[in-house]
Amino acid sequence: MLMTLVDGVPDAGVPADDRGLTYGDGVFRTMAMHGGRVSRWSLQYAKLASDCVVLGIQPPAGEALLQDIRAIAARAQDCSLRITVTRGSGGRGYAGPENPRPRRIVSASPLPAHPVEWASAGVTVRLCALRLSEQPALAGIKHLNRLENVLARAEWDDPAIAEGLLQDTAGNIIEGTRCNVFIVENGMLVTPDLSRCGVSGVTRELVMASAARHGLRCSVETVSRRRLESAAEVMLVNSLIGVWPVAAFGALRWREFPVATLVRKWLDAFDHPAV
Amino acid sequence: MLMTLVDGVPDAGVPADDRGLTYGDGVFRTMAMHGGRVSRWSLQYAKLASDCVVLGIQPPAGEALLQDIRAIAARAQDCSLRITVTRGSGGRGYAGPENPRPRRIVSASPLPAHPVEWASAGVTVRLCALRLSEQPALAGIKHLNRLENVLARAEWDDPAIAEGLLQDTAGNIIEGTRCNVFIVENGMLVTPDLSRCGVSGVTRELVMASAARHGLRCSVETVSRRRLESAAEVMLVNSLIGVWPVAAFGALRWREFPVATLVRKWLDAFDHPAV
Repeated sequence: MLMTLVDGVPDAGVPADDRGLTYGDGVFRTMAMHGGRVSRWSLQYAKLASDCVVLGIQPPAGEALLQDIRAIAARAQDCSLRITVTRGSGGRGYAGPENPRPRRIVSASPLPAHPVEWASAGVTVRLCALRLSEQPALAGIKHLNRLENVLARAEWDDPAIAEGLLQDTAGNIIEGTRCNVFIVENGMLVTPDLSRCGVSGVTRELVMASAARHGLRCSVETVSRRRLESAAEVMLVNSLIGVWPVAAFGALRWREFPVATLVRKWLDAFDHPAV
Repeated sequence: MLMTLVDGVPDAGVPADDRGLTYGDGVFRTMAMHGGRVSRWSLQYAKLASDCVVLGIQPPAGEALLQDIRAIAARAQDCSLRITVTRGSGGRGYAGPENPRPRRIVSASPLPAHPVEWASAGVTVRLCALRLSEQPALAGIKHLNRLENVLARAEWDDPAIAEGLLQDTAGNIIEGTRCNVFIVENGMLVTPDLSRCGVSGVTRELVMASAARHGLRCSVETVSRRRLESAAEVMLVNSLIGVWPVAAFGALRWREFPVATLVRKWLDAFDHPAV
């Protein structure tokens, strides 16, 4: 890592009794910083705070996080930022502390170095064997319990494979290990329902809002593997990669990505209040 | 906490990029130390190592952990010990590091102060609303993804309630938030099947082995809520509490605990190699 701030203190360690470590009791977000500016900060903060509230954790003040981000920007203008908020230390076993003091951890890493042609020519994806478990109480939240993602990502090490698709126990496509999925059917966007498993990302929300603004219908539905395989386009989105069209999945090939190209233009043009 | 050792270093912090913190990528155990001795250490170590192997983490050497335990015993003879092993720092996102250096964290806390009569007169338990999700790839493992336990434990704050019972999505009883469950039917023991969710504890394994040795049939089966409610006895077990008979669950009451008393005698008499 390039730099870390723990409750604003540079390069501090985290106490071993932090509940983020002991139980995964917290949430996080990953986002890009370019030229010292964080894209779509207001959306990132809103989602972080909303995820905290679902777990009953008091969200950190936006100003405290902005101070951390400015401190990082002073040392690393272009980086991948991760913001973690845990319930803090203490409590008796699983029971949380009576007077919780949530801990915030902001860290900067080098931006991922993906082949530039992946955004234009599309990526190769695979299907993960691991099936996501269904937990409505945690679905959609980007919490720290991410062993399923770790196990799924460990299924392959071919660097030519950009991402693995994850299914629920019924075999429906939910997401990638680190991104959300959209398909194009009859010129319209469809993204999988995340009410029982999966993580709902800021870029997914932004694509849905942009589609509405531009009059392109986008619906949240159950997406079977067969439905994805029959789609006119498949695309992967997250805050670091933007939009990747899928060019290859098993024996299937896609060669034209008009809607993915449109979605990328929307995201690029999004009038985002940066830090 | 009374004391913590991170890779053998007293009271050190954990780096913010530790994968136990960032993803819950690790395992742990909790056990009792009395008079500087850890009960059933060989079983605890075997389960810790076996859980590490399931996640593809190299288990720490037993001798390294024993050195940590001795260092703690020099300062706290009677305590609750927690041993955590994470995949260590690094990797690219969910992908693990190429040359992982697992991190071990050993910490001592005061032993829990439960009313002594709970072991003899039995405890009051409740049914948790949260249902456990089903993930065969992680079932049985005491990994660091414990948000379900945290959410379930947050459902009540009445100190007279000793434990909450957890069901799977089908409504079968799986475990307590921090213990395993046995029921007595026709003089025989039954414990819930943990192949799809739940944590398999060392004390559960020990009760099963002791039952076999003493000629009491003990089987692993699906235990519906109705079946538990109809049982002659219900008992909770873990390494810290030993055996608690259940005296009250909703409107139900149990007043005689002959098998729980027997099981406690087995555990007390177990010829355990202590540190």
